[in-house]
Amino acid sequence: MKNYLSINDIDSLPVWVDEAITLKKDPYQFQDLGKQKTVCLLFFNNSLRTRLSTQKAAMQLGMEVMIMNFGNESWALEYGDGTVMDQGTSEHIKEAARVVSQYCDIVAIRAFAGLVDKAKDEAEEVINGFAQYASIPVVNMESSVGHPLQALADAITLAEHNEKPKPKVVLSWAPHPKALPHAVANSFVDMMKLQDADFVITHPKGYELNPDITKGCHIEYDQDKALEDADFVYVKNWSSYSDYGQVLSKDLDWTMTEQKLGKAKFMHCLPVRRNMVVDDAVLDSDQSLVVEQAHNRVFAVQLVFKKLLETLS
Amino acid sequence: MKNYLSINDIDSLPVWVDEAITLKKDPYQFQDLGKQKTVCLLFFNNSLRTRLSTQKAAMQLGMEVMIMNFGNESWALEYGDGTVMDQGTSEHIKEAARVVSQYCDIVAIRAFAGLVDKAKDEAEEVINGFAQYASIPVVNMESSVGHPLQALADAITLAEHNEKPKPKVVLSWAPHPKALPHAVANSFVDMMKLQDADFVITHPKGYELNPDITKGCHIEYDQDKALEDADFVYVKNWSSYSDYGQVLSKDLDWTMTEQKLGKAKFMHCLPVRRNMVVDDAVLDSDQSLVVEQAHNRVFAVQLVFKKLLETLS
Amino acid sequence: MKNYLSINDIDSLPVWVDEAITLKKDPYQFQDLGKQKTVCLLFFNNSLRTRLSTQKAAMQLGMEVMIMNFGNESWALEYGDGTVMDQGTSEHIKEAARVVSQYCDIVAIRAFAGLVDKAKDEAEEVINGFAQYASIPVVNMESSVGHPLQALADAITLAEHNEKPKPKVVLSWAPHPKALPHAVANSFVDMMKLQDADFVITHPKGYELNPDITKGCHIEYDQDKALEDADFVYVKNWSSYSDYGQVLSKDLDWTMTEQKLGKAKFMHCLPVRRNMVVDDAVLDSDQSLVVEQAHNRVFAVQLVFKKLLETLS
Repeated sequence: MKNYLSINDIDSLPVWVDEAITLKKDPYQFQDLGKQKTVCLLFFNNSLRTRLSTQKAAMQLGMEVMIMNFGNESWALEYGDGTVMDQGTSEHIKEAARVVSQYCDIVAIRAFAGLVDKAKDEAEEVINGFAQYASIPVVNMESSVGHPLQALADAITLAEHNEKPKPKVVLSWAPHPKALPHAVANSFVDMMKLQDADFVITHPKGYELNPDITKGCHIEYDQDKALEDADFVYVKNWSSYSDYGQVLSKDLDWTMTEQKLGKAKFMHCLPVRRNMVVDDAVLDSDQSLVVEQAHNRVFAVQLVFKKLLETLS
Repeated sequence: MKNYLSINDIDSLPVWVDEAITLKKDPYQFQDLGKQKTVCLLFFNNSLRTRLSTQKAAMQLGMEVMIMNFGNESWALEYGDGTVMDQGTSEHIKEAARVVSQYCDIVAIRAFAGLVDKAKDEAEEVINGFAQYASIPVVNMESSVGHPLQALADAITLAEHNEKPKPKVVLSWAPHPKALPHAVANSFVDMMKLQDADFVITHPKGYELNPDITKGCHIEYDQDKALEDADFVYVKNWSSYSDYGQVLSKDLDWTMTEQKLGKAKFMHCLPVRRNMVVDDAVLDSDQSLVVEQAHNRVFAVQLVFKKLLETLS
Repeated sequence: MKNYLSINDIDSLPVWVDEAITLKKDPYQFQDLGKQKTVCLLFFNNSLRTRLSTQKAAMQLGMEVMIMNFGNESWALEYGDGTVMDQGTSEHIKEAARVVSQYCDIVAIRAFAGLVDKAKDEAEEVINGFAQYASIPVVNMESSVGHPLQALADAITLAEHNEKPKPKVVLSWAPHPKALPHAVANSFVDMMKLQDADFVITHPKGYELNPDITKGCHIEYDQDKALEDADFVYVKNWSSYSDYGQVLSKDLDWTMTEQKLGKAKFMHCLPVRRNMVVDDAVLDSDQSLVVEQAHNRVFAVQLVFKKLLETLS
């Protein structure tokens, strides 16, 4: 593995999940692996879980951490080829990526979708730019179209709580006041395609995810039907993909409730809008796995760093 | 001690002050205590002394430090119970506090008073929210109504410079161009109530602090009379408490001068407005203890961290 | 050496360059020197290379690093003597410098020229204020008039790539959409005055640097003539010095091209505007040393820290 850009960079998900669970039992067992190694975290967007869990994971491996907020601490980057840089951007991704590669051993990047221009978002110019020009491994801390560290943490959480050979897992869209990216949903779907599960996606019409990603998945527009006998319900909002970046509905009929959830476990990546995406009663119940998912973010990224460190001399 | 939220969380101030002075003589003597422990510093407001002294203290205990600015790096938090989160806040304190507890061993928080809504400020929703929902110890790095790390540093400084069994200590209000919170003054008063001293508070009428805090204290509206034979003069501005958050006076007659100070030692928590709160001549004299107070911030917070670490397995 | 404020604080440039090249071969050889020592990096302006290379250097010496952005994390500083601080500034440099000195062993500062008031910029109030009032060594991470860490990195890069007893080195002005400070050019000139080289400065009329700095230097207004048989071409934009801070020309005839460069090596401090300051073809060629210059920033600052640490007990 050269980079960790997508859940598909994982060679065997079950093996990785087992390794992560082993790591969780003794988080400092590889504390010498990262000695004299540095990871640089570049944030183009806000973060709480990702920022803290990634620092924690690096520390547990004995790595040094450098953090930079690209919004207010560094220079605006240019991504175009051949651009005459006489406008607002001060530094080209070619230089930025090569230079960062001089100062650290791994670079991890967060750069959200703008949700205005689908083609631009799907080009993933920030993370792909770093992947192209950096001479060190690149880790995706949520890009325009994917959040593979979250999906790996979710896979770990599913494994820890699943008791069936083939559980029923439902990805259920929820209303939200703002337009949100598709990254978490995309990576969750990609991850579920690697699982032995009865996986169903449910959302209002018009909220279909990228069909290249959901190809072969069971999509059910009737939420009640989708949720029948579910073992795990992953709730998440995303904006429209076809009507790109638009909020087509804020219908609170899609909000997850105790009654809808039944006996299933509740999952969400956080941050979550209470009483909009999900009722207080669900989040505050024992069926909620959200804090455990956040906890597993540490072991997901720690496993990724461990595997990347092992490829370095 | 579960948390350090107020000066009243200290079981014995004289014992703590002695311990801090011992720590100061050999700051690295407990450098193994914080091994593999992490403190997360959450800033909802600006900081210089608090940010740097807290990092320094953590390092001297061998702890790792994570810092997050909530203003521009993370999500806006919701504190209301049962709120339908369809507006500006993205994450509820319940999730934020539980999640941060997964990534560190102690969380320290700075969140100033807004000075608009007294009831809201006194509810201390940020720090109390973390104290309620976090599963790890919470440290107050200045909240709406208190700054107990400053007060502990002040107690250390008083002890180091006091030569009398019962010194006279005066808290003297000073003019300032902006409306400032009451936190420093409140905690100083609370701390002085634990001391064997002749303690006097002086300020213009209308600047009375919260009477629940100053109950039993000697208040003298005549500054000259208050300052007579003082050993230590702690100067500080605060806005009106009764006329909440208002600046009622910028009267430079209350500015501390060499003449008014006499032979007393001068104290201030910093940052200080020169020639408004206090004359250059006072700050630049040997009677000023302000740099020593700032220095003692390290040992105040280091002692608090040490005591909290000792409660962890 | 008490501080590192200017390239002229170096006692012998050739000796320093040799030491830096030795350090580069084994960057962790002095990892015990910085044990229990802390450097505080204060940023009044943006940074990428400086922020990361300085952290890396400190880590390689075993030092702890604290970082503060003065723009949004701390208080606005006052520099005037005797000012009545009843306006926007909250803390005087006297207190800030003395207080920071309590928490760390070295302080490094970045504060750019404002390019509005020449006298104010040349007074260097930020870095000189810290140098005057701090009780610890001060390092210049780019001030109004100089960038001596960049110049030291450039000297290292020149030494690594030079094959002649007396190479020809040209400092060539380039167009830029915005008004930029003179700091990099000034320190490069100061550094070249310490070298045995055929050094030529070329720029349009009106772009003369401070004559006190270029005194004795060969200035050639004809760029083609200046570039003849050059071994190294250092390209850089700066705004007018005589017509202070103004952009007098954006003439793309001054942009560095493959043809103009000939067989010379290309140097630039970065960030660089592609196809404005220099053509893609130059930056993407083997003749470009810009990434190596950025890499050498680590060893320049590491050498400075090493020398300062050696002066501490």
